[in-house]
Amino acid sequence: MANEKKGWDPNQLRKYDLNLEQIPRLDYGDPRVDELIAENKPVVITGSKLVKSAEKWDIDYLEQHMGNGDFTVFLSRNHKFKYYDEKKMAQKSQNGENVKGVEFSPPTKKIDMKLPEFIKRLREWKRGDERLYLQQGLNNTVGPAIVHDFVHFDWDFCNSKQAKHHWGPLTSNLLLIAMEGNVTPCHYDEQQNLFAQIRGYKRCILFPPDQFDCLYPHPVHHPHDRQSMVDFDRPDYNRFPKFKEARGCETVIGPGDILYIPIYWWHHIESLMRGGYTVTVNFWYKGGPNTSITYPLKAHQKVAVMRNIEKMLLEVLQDPKEIPPLLRAMVLGRYTE
Amino acid sequence: MANEKKGWDPNQLRKYDLNLEQIPRLDYGDPRVDELIAENKPVVITGSKLVKSAEKWDIDYLEQHMGNGDFTVFLSRNHKFKYYDEKKMAQKSQNGENVKGVEFSPPTKKIDMKLPEFIKRLREWKRGDERLYLQQGLNNTVGPAIVHDFVHFDWDFCNSKQAKHHWGPLTSNLLLIAMEGNVTPCHYDEQQNLFAQIRGYKRCILFPPDQFDCLYPHPVHHPHDRQSMVDFDRPDYNRFPKFKEARGCETVIGPGDILYIPIYWWHHIESLMRGGYTVTVNFWYKGGPNTSITYPLKAHQKVAVMRNIEKMLLEVLQDPKEIPPLLRAMVLGRYTE
Ligand SMILES: [Zn+2]
Ligand SMILES: [Zn+2]
Repeated sequence: MANEKKGWDPNQLRKYDLNLEQIPRLDYGDPRVDELIAENKPVVITGSKLVKSAEKWDIDYLEQHMGNGDFTVFLSRNHKFKYYDEKKMAQKSQNGENVKGVEFSPPTKKIDMKLPEFIKRLREWKRGDERLYLQQGLNNTVGPAIVHDFVHFDWDFCNSKQAKHHWGPLTSNLLLIAMEGNVTPCHYDEQQNLFAQIRGYKRCILFPPDQFDCLYPHPVHHPHDRQSMVDFDRPDYNRFPKFKEARGCETVIGPGDILYIPIYWWHHIESLMRGGYTVTVNFWYKGGPNTSITYPLKAHQKVAVMRNIEKMLLEVLQDPKEIPPLLRAMVLGRYTE
Repeated sequence: MANEKKGWDPNQLRKYDLNLEQIPRLDYGDPRVDELIAENKPVVITGSKLVKSAEKWDIDYLEQHMGNGDFTVFLSRNHKFKYYDEKKMAQKSQNGENVKGVEFSPPTKKIDMKLPEFIKRLREWKRGDERLYLQQGLNNTVGPAIVHDFVHFDWDFCNSKQAKHHWGPLTSNLLLIAMEGNVTPCHYDEQQNLFAQIRGYKRCILFPPDQFDCLYPHPVHHPHDRQSMVDFDRPDYNRFPKFKEARGCETVIGPGDILYIPIYWWHHIESLMRGGYTVTVNFWYKGGPNTSITYPLKAHQKVAVMRNIEKMLLEVLQDPKEIPPLLRAMVLGRYTE
């Protein structure tokens, strides 16, 4: 069967009620790759050697060579690992009162773990245990074998993409080790992303920035800033009616594939069910400088405008609870039909 | 009857479905006058001599002494004179295309008229004719008798209010001559206003700035900026459901009364039906300097914040048609319940 050749099977994909096209898969030498990147459109780049030196990064190898540094691991009672920004959580002051920030119970636990401990828990994991997801920037605590592999990434390849498309500096390389079935719910980042798959398969669902109104991000001051409020497993169509109209695209990436996730594009990422653990390294770049602005603004620029309004409102009102009534007064009946 | 003593009768008031308290009427020497002004609350000030020198300003006297300057007169096919800002109307460019601004058909005509012509039309007016409303800043084209009366306004009185309450400079004195039954629909101004009645009776309905969400002002970039979209004669409760909850206050002012209309307070003003023409002079002052800001912000400060967001959005998007979808995307489902 064709799917066996691909290394995965459609039954391994979670089922969502979504209307999705396929993201183009193109060989890294194909000139259309750069055309798509230039237009800020996603593309799966095949055949590159970007993380070839890491193709041996299974958990045995990583356990042996990664060193004794601390790794950030998230624990979840379900398959979803929805990111949250701790800085936006309400902080207790000395007298036990909340000082600014939003009241919030994190949906996952974030802990530090040594790699051997993480891998032990991965190997011994059984149904009912908390799921694990390691998400750690590669840093100088790693052992020499890993440094060697890192240095032998095909930096020419990604540097040339950075230069050609006027991206800002590389900010980090995140190492992601997920259990099968783990889901990173739909969100957008404010960086350009080369998402390089090393082991296992990930299904990636993307939406362009103009789908903002269909995806209902949390308020900017909320710890779930940039994350969709819609639960793809059980969308609340009463609260989020336009989610029905969301138009996106998808792909499944495997070892050696790179997914270009354009800045401000929404992405939902799932490690295939019954596919074993997955290993990914991403390359995050700042956006390019603002070139001359043309009108009408592009969707991602409008997202930035909205973000700035929300930030300004918190600055000027000082209390996140004051933002919703002000925005409702400004908009309801005045800018609605 | 008590109302005859007052010079007017409740039957002369237009009927609205509104929940209104009475604005306090206080003698100008009453210390509560300044307490109310200090709190930015409306008050009718009786017994002052502020415009005593103008008590003889009937149309005969004005015709004789006003001089040959041009006066701004609005003409309306109905009783409403809803203000509009011509600078916010779409302008035709040379090739006939609209260049920025909002497409808009003014509800009234604005024309220049000599005072004798205005008064002739007032005297000869009959049902079915266009209604007239003169609204002209007092300037140096007026004749010496009017200048004399103007100079003999009780400037000490209003200067002391200005000083005591830290208002900014006096910006203008508007002379208002309305036909009986004329209505200035509900709006707010960005200035402090001493509204001094000279002839006839005006019914004034005011709402505090915190009723913004019940009164649905037009978008800031619209020519009807600062005007409520709600037609008090026939409120569209489907579009403007919170208008049902609007809580305001009212009064009827007559010759010698001064209504203090605080900055950012909504006001609807009607010359009583069957009461003859009315003459009013207002004293507009800029708001005071921002003193140290305390939180939560006051309602009028939040109105200023909303105005700034709307202005900034037009600046950044360049096209008023782009504002509603952006605000809807930012708010609906995200800041609504
Ligand atoms: Zn992401
Ligand atoms: Zn006014």
